[in-house]
Amino acid sequence: MMSFKKLQSSIKKSNSLLCIGLDSDISKLPNVFSKDINGLLSFNQCIIEATSDIVAAYKINFAFYEQYGKDGFDVLEKTFKLIPTTIFTIADAKRGDIGNTTAAYATSVFNYFNADSVTVNPYMGLDSIDKFLDDKNKFIFILALTSNPGSNDFQRLIADNKFIYQHIIEKSIANYSKENIGFVIGATHPKEIENIRKIIPSYSLLIPGIGTQGGNIKEVINANDNGTALINVSRAIIYPQINKNNINILEFATIVRQTAIKYFNYMKL
Amino acid sequence: MMSFKKLQSSIKKSNSLLCIGLDSDISKLPNVFSKDINGLLSFNQCIIEATSDIVAAYKINFAFYEQYGKDGFDVLEKTFKLIPTTIFTIADAKRGDIGNTTAAYATSVFNYFNADSVTVNPYMGLDSIDKFLDDKNKFIFILALTSNPGSNDFQRLIADNKFIYQHIIEKSIANYSKENIGFVIGATHPKEIENIRKIIPSYSLLIPGIGTQGGNIKEVINANDNGTALINVSRAIIYPQINKNNINILEFATIVRQTAIKYFNYMKL
Repeated sequence: MMSFKKLQSSIKKSNSLLCIGLDSDISKLPNVFSKDINGLLSFNQCIIEATSDIVAAYKINFAFYEQYGKDGFDVLEKTFKLIPTTIFTIADAKRGDIGNTTAAYATSVFNYFNADSVTVNPYMGLDSIDKFLDDKNKFIFILALTSNPGSNDFQRLIADNKFIYQHIIEKSIANYSKENIGFVIGATHPKEIENIRKIIPSYSLLIPGIGTQGGNIKEVINANDNGTALINVSRAIIYPQINKNNINILEFATIVRQTAIKYFNYMKL
Repeated sequence: MMSFKKLQSSIKKSNSLLCIGLDSDISKLPNVFSKDINGLLSFNQCIIEATSDIVAAYKINFAFYEQYGKDGFDVLEKTFKLIPTTIFTIADAKRGDIGNTTAAYATSVFNYFNADSVTVNPYMGLDSIDKFLDDKNKFIFILALTSNPGSNDFQRLIADNKFIYQHIIEKSIANYSKENIGFVIGATHPKEIENIRKIIPSYSLLIPGIGTQGGNIKEVINANDNGTALINVSRAIIYPQINKNNINILEFATIVRQTAIKYFNYMKL
């Protein structure tokens, strides 16, 4: 199945734009999980089981698993397998390199982990992206304007009267179809989301930065103007405030679900 | 030990700027190695043993290991351990993300794999780099002007009369010391290496693109003007032309060593 079709059907099936980011970290696990690599997998399983009927996608942040080396890569692999096959997955790895290296990264995320999509850093140019799309069934989200304050450093430099991130969007849509690429635009930039939506109404957006990073959901939803999008929440859902000592796993799952439902309600179609 | 000091001492000890890139791929292993994950590690061990007295550094390209998932990460870990501790290592992973994610990437490359340095993609801005340098003993190579043709797409856009890669260099040296950062400049751009050397004579450069990618060694050596640098050769050394069927491992090691010595002789101090 084409990843793009799966993205659309997953949004439709869940009836929302909610994407949950599995930025899972042993040091942040609630006490009900063992503070080790097994606890990390149990935690992910709990989050997925508590939320899989209300999310359009899971975004799995590779860094958090890589920090545990091969054991982390093992949890990464098992986590992808825990996600119901109808739900869209994003390998949030921000990869990008010269051709033969990108081909190896593509093998990793698409063949080994079987992700539906991957986040890609375009700084090295289009020939650093091409190999991700040798298989035309695959999908990538290209970093354009990211959610962090540092997005001002280089992404907003102006060349030929356009921001660098606009150059990236223009050159990308001139070379790839909406069935293969979308863009990462941070929730912290609602005005820019609104402007970008006017230029590329039919391309998909991955919008991180809601919750801990401070993006405003209502502004983002309005700016997105009913376009195909995934709005990601990571820490605010997976590390909810817990006002009781020694909760059990069911209680934790309930709190996670209630928190996720709050976001789901904002992001309903 | 500070990574920067180790970089300097490793160049001095080897008496050259030669860096060998371990872009190791099971499908490209010569017949003397088993075409599996064990063969991959034996291949790396053979390359390292055949060349460790004549190289200043090894650059280990994470993509090639990630394509084999957790088994690849296991080989990655074992490969780092096979490298003599006096030789400088580069985790060629081209990472970069928002702060808490970059902190996890830093844990992966510096604490788990114990690399001396990592290549970093600066597109997301300086706050995506900072966390790599929480430990002031560490060293990063920031992508500036890469060796691939696609480096023209965005790195050479002009803002305020300067190329984007120049903005990246300027902003980086304004914020970080030469003891913590260097830059990646492709060997395919000798003129730019010459110009950059005049502006930042004391910063270290990682120069890939020699060999298969077509960079000219003599031009690069002249352009570098005796600055601290590592000149990387990957495929041209680790996959040498073999004119005989059924060579044994010693014969293969000898061919690799002879090929590496050719490059070493160009890059001698």
